Formats: sequence, C-alpha cells, structure tokens
Amino acid sequence: MVRAEAAIFEGAASFEPTRPDVYGDAHPRDLLRAIHEEHDYLRALAHSHIASAAQFERPLLMQLFRLAAKYEANPERYGTPLKPLAGKLLISAFYEPSTRTRLSFESAWHRLGGDIMSITDRSTTGIAKGESLSDVAEMFNNYGDCVVLRDSRAESVMEMMNSLRIPIINAGNGCDEHPTQALADLYAIMKWRPDLLADKPENPIRIGIVGVPERMRTVRSLLTLLSRFSDAIEEVVVVHDGKQEPLFAPEQRENLMRDGLTISETSDLNGVLPTLDVVYINAIAWVKDSFEVMGEELKLDASSPLKSSAIVLHPLARGPELCTSLDNTPHNWYFAQARGAVFIRMALLTCMVQRTEMVMDIV
Amino acid sequence: MVRAEAAIFEGAASFEPTRPDVYGDAHPRDLLRAIHEEHDYLRALAHSHIASAAQFERPLLMQLFRLAAKYEANPERYGTPLKPLAGKLLISAFYEPSTRTRLSFESAWHRLGGDIMSITDRSTTGIAKGESLSDVAEMFNNYGDCVVLRDSRAESVMEMMNSLRIPIINAGNGCDEHPTQALADLYAIMKWRPDLLADKPENPIRIGIVGVPERMRTVRSLLTLLSRFSDAIEEVVVVHDGKQEPLFAPEQRENLMRDGLTISETSDLNGVLPTLDVVYINAIAWVKDSFEVMGEELKLDASSPLKSSAIVLHPLARGPELCTSLDNTPHNWYFAQARGAVFIRMALLTCMVQRTEMVMDIV
Amino acid sequence: MVRAEAAIFEGAASFEPTRPDVYGDAHPRDLLRAIHEEHDYLRALAHSHIASAAQFERPLLMQLFRLAAKYEANPERYGTPLKPLAGKLLISAFYEPSTRTRLSFESAWHRLGGDIMSITDRSTTGIAKGESLSDVAEMFNNYGDCVVLRDSRAESVMEMMNSLRIPIINAGNGCDEHPTQALADLYAIMKWRPDLLADKPENPIRIGIVGVPERMRTVRSLLTLLSRFSDAIEEVVVVHDGKQEPLFAPEQRENLMRDGLTISETSDLNGVLPTLDVVYINAIAWVKDSFEVMGEELKLDASSPLKSSAIVLHPLARGPELCTSLDNTPHNWYFAQARGAVFIRMALLTCMVQRTEMVMDIV
Repeated sequence: MVRAEAAIFEGAASFEPTRPDVYGDAHPRDLLRAIHEEHDYLRALAHSHIASAAQFERPLLMQLFRLAAKYEANPERYGTPLKPLAGKLLISAFYEPSTRTRLSFESAWHRLGGDIMSITDRSTTGIAKGESLSDVAEMFNNYGDCVVLRDSRAESVMEMMNSLRIPIINAGNGCDEHPTQALADLYAIMKWRPDLLADKPENPIRIGIVGVPERMRTVRSLLTLLSRFSDAIEEVVVVHDGKQEPLFAPEQRENLMRDGLTISETSDLNGVLPTLDVVYINAIAWVKDSFEVMGEELKLDASSPLKSSAIVLHPLARGPELCTSLDNTPHNWYFAQARGAVFIRMALLTCMVQRTEMVMDIV
Repeated sequence: MVRAEAAIFEGAASFEPTRPDVYGDAHPRDLLRAIHEEHDYLRALAHSHIASAAQFERPLLMQLFRLAAKYEANPERYGTPLKPLAGKLLISAFYEPSTRTRLSFESAWHRLGGDIMSITDRSTTGIAKGESLSDVAEMFNNYGDCVVLRDSRAESVMEMMNSLRIPIINAGNGCDEHPTQALADLYAIMKWRPDLLADKPENPIRIGIVGVPERMRTVRSLLTLLSRFSDAIEEVVVVHDGKQEPLFAPEQRENLMRDGLTISETSDLNGVLPTLDVVYINAIAWVKDSFEVMGEELKLDASSPLKSSAIVLHPLARGPELCTSLDNTPHNWYFAQARGAVFIRMALLTCMVQRTEMVMDIV
Repeated sequence: MVRAEAAIFEGAASFEPTRPDVYGDAHPRDLLRAIHEEHDYLRALAHSHIASAAQFERPLLMQLFRLAAKYEANPERYGTPLKPLAGKLLISAFYEPSTRTRLSFESAWHRLGGDIMSITDRSTTGIAKGESLSDVAEMFNNYGDCVVLRDSRAESVMEMMNSLRIPIINAGNGCDEHPTQALADLYAIMKWRPDLLADKPENPIRIGIVGVPERMRTVRSLLTLLSRFSDAIEEVVVVHDGKQEPLFAPEQRENLMRDGLTISETSDLNGVLPTLDVVYINAIAWVKDSFEVMGEELKLDASSPLKSSAIVLHPLARGPELCTSLDNTPHNWYFAQARGAVFIRMALLTCMVQRTEMVMDIV
C-alpha cells in the first residue's frame, strides 16, 4: 500500500491552481460580444417549469448563453458579492444516484448566494410510504422556491409539475430528457465558435454524435437544441455500432429533420471522424435504476483520425469510450463543457426565481 | 411512456404561483390581532429542550402562535432580510426516514438565516460503532447550536438530553410524541377560529380524531395540546375501527379528562361527522423502523357527511384514508396546516436559540 | 417504554449551557501568549494539499495552534461576523461512514461563513459508474474551492491530488493517516502545557499511547507530529496487548527515533500509567469498509493508577476502553480535544483557501 507520507515526498502536496489554458476567459468574452442583451426573453421564463429541451427557442437560448458567459467571464463580480439568489431555497431532489449533476446545480445555486436542502435517498421520502407525487409537490410548494429533480421514472417530473407552484427543473428523467445538460453542450459549442450564432453562419459545422438517440436522454435533448441552430449545422452524423434497434424513437428523426437538421447515420467511426468539427460521445444509457453501456467498440483516443481543429464533447462520467490520451490535446473541450455547465445553470436558475433584474447590464 | 416534450405541448410548462385562496393572509392577521404580545413567555424557553407536548401551557402556546403568525403574515420582513438565526448552526438528525418533517425544519431554519448540517443515515454515525448517545450529545455540544432529532427508538431523545448543553427538539420519537406537529395542528385551528383563544369562548368546537391515541405519536401530542384549551372544546370524539386494543395508553384518557377534555369514542365515522367542526385523520403509526396502517376502513372523501363549515386536518403523508376529492373543497385545511408548520417551527426555533429580541415588536 | 412526558416531569427539560469548567478560556489564551504570530508560515500553505502529518514542521504547527487558539478564545469576533470563508464552497466527501469528523469539518467551515456540498454515500457517485478518481477530481475543480475526503481506500486521496487544482484535506484514508486528528491531539496537549513549546522545555513529558501504530491511522499521524516536538517529550511508551504483530510498520519506529523520539513498548498498562503525563488511547482500527477493535483488555477508568496531573486523550468514538467514570475527573481532556478540533480545523481551512489576511492581527 502506498502511504501518503511517501507520496508527499515525491512532491505531490502542491498544485497549480490554474491549468495551462491558452484562452483563459477569452471564450466567454467572445460570446458576450457576439450577443446583444435582450432581457425580455429571460423574463419570459418566470412561472415556467423546465422539463424538455423543446421549450427553448433560439432567442432564449442566446440570452441564456449570454448570461452564462457574463457569469463565467466575471465570477468575482456577479456571483458572491451580488448574491442574486439570497434568501432563495432550492430543493435538490436526486432520487436517481448522481454526484456530478447534483454538485453542478448545488454549486451554481450556492455561487449565487442561495441555500439548499438536499434529498439524495428516495427511500427516506414519503414516496416510500406511498405518498403521491402530487402531495410531494404540494409539500415542496411550502418549503422551497425551486426544485431540481432527477428520477429514474420518466413520468415523475410531469406528475409533480401539475401540482407545483414553484418552478421545477428536470435534471434527468429516466431515458427521456436532460435539458440542462444539452444547454451546457450547446454553450460549449457557442463559446468555441460564436460565429455560429449569426443568422446565416458562413462556416456551418458537421457534428458527430456517438450515441443512441432513442435511448440516451442527453442525446435526445441535445438533438432538440441543435435543431434550433440548424443553419449553423451542415449535418448531424449519428455513429452507432449497429446493435441498437431502433436508433431513433418514433418520429424523432422526422421531427428533427422538419426543424431543419440534416441527419445521417454510420457505423464507420474512423471513416467519418476526419469530416467532423464536433464529436459528441456518450456510452451510458439509464435503464430503470441502473444503466447500460452501449457502443462498446466505439472509442476515441489520441490516435483517432480527428480533424486538427475538431473538439470533443462528453457529458461525463466517461468510461473507456473516451480515452485519457485526449485530455491534454486541444480536442479536449469536455472539461470546459463541464466547467461551463455551472455557469449555464447559474443563468437558468437566476431566471427561474426571477432575479434577472439584479444581474442585467446597467447602461 | 409519456415524454416530457409531449407534456410541454399540452401546456404543462407554466404554473400559477399562488393557489386560488380566498383568504390570502387574512388568517394569520386575525390571529395576530387576537393575541397581545408578551415576550416573557418566549424568553422562558431559553435553556429548554422540547421533548413532549406536555411542556406547553396555554400562555406560551399563544405567544408561539402569535410569533408564527407574525412570520406568516410578513414573510418578507421577518425572514430573510432580518436573519435572526445568522451564525447559528442546526444539527438536523433524522435517524428515522423522513422528508416532510426534515424539510419543514430545514426550511424554517434557512428562512431565518441559519446554516445546517444534516444526518440522514443512522448507519453512518458513531452509533453504528457502538458509541453511546451521551457521547453523541457531547459531540453535538461542540459542533452546533441546536439539534432536531427523529428516531424510531423512543428513548434516544431523553438519553441525549441528559448530556446536551444545546437545545434539542423531538421531531418524533418512536410512537411516543411529535410535539411540533401538534403545535402546527393547533396553530391551524387557531388561525381558522381565533375566537377560540378567548378565556371563555362562546362557541366551543367538537373535534373528531380518526386515529389511535395509544399508538400514534401525532395524536398523543395533539391531545395534550388540546387539553390546554379545554374551554374551547366541547368534546373530543376518537373514531376507531374497533380493532385497536387498547385505544389509549395507561392513564392517558384519565389525564386528559382531568385536564378538562371531554372524550368519547365511536366506530361510526359517518354517524358522528355531521356533528364535528374539526376532523383530524391519520392512518400511520410508526413501529420500530417501519410503519403500520391502522383503520383502513375509515376514510374521508367529498361524499363524507361533513358539516359545511367543518375543516379537515391531517399531519401528512396521507394514503387512501384522505381522498384527493376533498383537496379543492373549503374543508381542506391540511395543506394550510403543512404551510403553517414552517412558521410555527420558525417561531419555536427563534426562541430555542434565544434570538427573540430580534423579532419582537418595536413600540 | 419511558415516555417523554414522564421524563420532562423529572426535570429533564432544561440544561446548563456551560459545563462546570474551572479554566474557561484560560487555555487558548495561555497558548496565544506563548506564540508570536508569524504569518509567512501560514501563507506557505497556499496551493498545498494536506495528505500526511509529515507535511507539518514545528514552526507551521505553532502558527496553526496560535490561529486555532485565536478562534477558540474569541469565537464571537473571528467567526461569524467576519466570515473569512464567505463565498467559498467546500466539497465534503465522506465515502467511508463518519459523523464526528464530517460534522467537525462542516461546523468549522460554516463557522467561518462558507457553504458546503456533502457527499455521504459512495454508491451515488460516478465512482459507482466506474469513473476514475482523476475525473472526479476534475469535476471537483469546477464545483468547489476545497475538498475534504475520507475513504476506506488509502490510495484515493493521492490519486485525486494528481488532478486537483483546489486543495484537498485527507480526513482519513484507510489505515494510513488522519492528519487533522493529530493536529487536534497536539493542539490539546499544547493548550494544556504551553511551556512545551519552548525551544528547550524544562519539564518534558512522558506520553503513553494505547494503540497500534502499524494499524491505526490516528496513531500514525500523531507519532509523526509528536516527533516535531521531540525536545518536549522524554519518552513515548506504546502500550499493547501482545497480540498485534507487527506493532510498527516497516521503518516507522526507526524514522521516529531518527527524528528524536525515544520510544519504548510495554503490555503492562497499570505498571506504566503512574509514570505518564499524557495517556492517549484508541481501540478502533479501520479495515476496508469496516473496523476492528484492538486491545480489548486495555482499559482506563477512574480506578486506573493515573498520575494525579495526567490527562487522557481519545480521538473518539470510544467504546469500553475508556470508561465514563473518567468523564467528570480532571484527567478528562478528550472532550476538550474534540472541542478544540473544530478550531484547529478552522485554522487549517482558513489557510487552505488563502483567507488568512482577514484574520491576522491588526497592529
């Protein structure tokens, strides 16, 4: 067993607080400059629940990206001293196990000055006593100002919405949706290429999705948001291993194409990689209270024939499908994607509890 | 499976922040006007633990109701900006599963500006290592300013009290007591009918309790508090299904009658309902680490022969015994009861940590 | 079953907020006077992880004791109003069950005005999905400002350190180390006898350790810190039951002796007790996800032949090895040890997140 004392003497006790990062805060600043602030779209989120990526149209998405970029470019100014969520109470209900998404939301809420009550064990709740979700929602109405819910049961969030008088955000409902993850994915893409926000982008991108649209909630929500920027996307290529049947849910592909996306499929990952600007990969699909790994032969590593300027995204947690050999390459945007996820959630939460006035630009 | 996207398009994504409520904040204001503030009774709670409803005499109860009503009528003024519990640390120890009571206490503490450390899994504590509760109490003395404890083992709260030098509130000890729930029950009744606070109320009420006094901690504590207002209560009718034997604990009924309550029993729910002003119903009794459902045939629904002005109370979580068909009727005071529970806990907690000076009326 | 109502009427409902304590805050004040403040040593902790007691040299230890004593002697001034950790976010990750150490750290962080996100169930984390600790560390980089980690797997803290860009404190890694517990142990000893901080103490002490250095992380870390004050220690006597083989890890004893400690061993507890100034006792050693009790026949109680001025320390939780008959004797410094643990952790955490400027003396 390696002991801590030995590890310390090998110099492991100190760290660099900032990773080598050529761009620093350039990316959120570029995004800020690319979007004009229009507060009305954010105000429209008042009295709304967030259950599906389908609720987000392009103008609202751009305003959310702008607010997230404002938070990310100026963490010292807009977060803690200002405390836009001071006095607001979040009910963080993770009935399906999670640390990443839960900490991302809780960090976002704390950074804005709010307080949190966490539920991390489904068996401790009234639900275990047979209490209806409608009654659980009525209870939440009395105890908090906002709910974030993850549940392996897809209908739970819809059942609660019917009785809630405070906003709820779907943090993953079974294999259905994960709208805020898709917001984080698109926020990363737009920070990387703010020119894609133009009405008619001159250099649309080709996006590969290594995953299963029918089965993965992250992919479902992402495709919906991508369809809001169909002019920026030359093609979406879904890469699969041929074993998932069906690849799309009923009408899923037709609806996305009707919204303007061009979609193709392939099993030849290395064949299509040299043509892609963005490669999104995920291997986990939630099934009931557990998960399945899909597409085990589809892997990315430093030897993959990626375009030199291509970026790789992954919702994380990752397994063997995304090799650590890519971590220290410029393709690695999956860590930036995770970092930005806190800021995009800060932006969304600020709107949900109607505190946007506190953070809008003062002219 | 119903997908979120489909649900959204049926208009489920927005909500009304306030339920249709004819009375608004009229009820706490009526209660405020009915009670003269006398700070001394609240100060007397300093250096006290709250283990049993028997600790509350009528004058103290009235001052707690008044403070709760002040909080409920002016949430913006007395809660967050004032922060009476700023810098105070709550140890929220729920060794028996709960979400409702835990969130109610945690919400109350947060609303007053305090911080919280939660213990929700008995198996992670020193108790799992065989540590005595007296040592756990000594540990709590060093780490927090107040303890809230729920345990399936009835003696735990008493054992801890012996070594605690910070206040502890019993949030439910086995099938023994649940004093703060009873405070919430009575607070609801007095908001509904503040005239019952007069020395000699002109229109005393008849209260039905559908439950088992011997077995249900909520009923035990409630009966004790009702006995403090015996002049306001014409009769308490305990409604049971004939299968619970005994119905009362040794001397329980005699003690209540000695304190002035008139108590009768019946199995004929629908026969007695037309005579009752308040109907309190509960079906769950905690037994060790689990619970039993009692009185399964005793149910209330919209067809029950309730007096038109009667109100229904339930500590929640509810099951089939209280039908949702009553939710949208004026009989429904169980949701108001749950809402008020946060404010009565805010009042009690303010006293326990001796911050009442910060919220007393400034003349 | 004893009911709460009965217990209340036996006078159990009120408490004394302060234990009879002859010394009051004399001890931290004596320690404050004995050490001159030298801020540079504390600044040197910036960008450091705390994995092993071996990272602490004597000058740094003295400055940490001084800062802890400042907090302990003036809780009202340096804690809540000042809020040195305002806006800072702690990730409290206890993958191995604990309440005592977790609450001690969380209390310390809250007292300094920071916010906390807790992980208390290993099975809810990405680790359960096979996520690498290096990826978990990268996630933590984005969500918090400091990590406290306890894990039954000794290597976890070292693996995370490699990828963390925020500080991590080892709160117990398997049977390897528990550095902050040792800080608390030494802080207690130095409050009791500040004269031991002199360069050449005139009255060095004899310390007995009833425990197993090879197996107990608390003992391992303690011995390392004691070796920093070898001039203050005449001898360390390790008391064992003859059944633990080996008593020391490879080279452990040799290294400590090279650092200046004189170490002997015995199985005769009562024979050596009259010669000891400090008796440290512990019976629990963590083994994988559970624990073993060692040295069952070695017990201390009020009849033990302790020197009249001797003090007893125990990291707690305790079992039969430390009898409650010692609790109300002057030998009892184990409760003071636990109380001081919050203040020494406040001192360390203030340094880790680089907020020492806010609490240094203003001349």
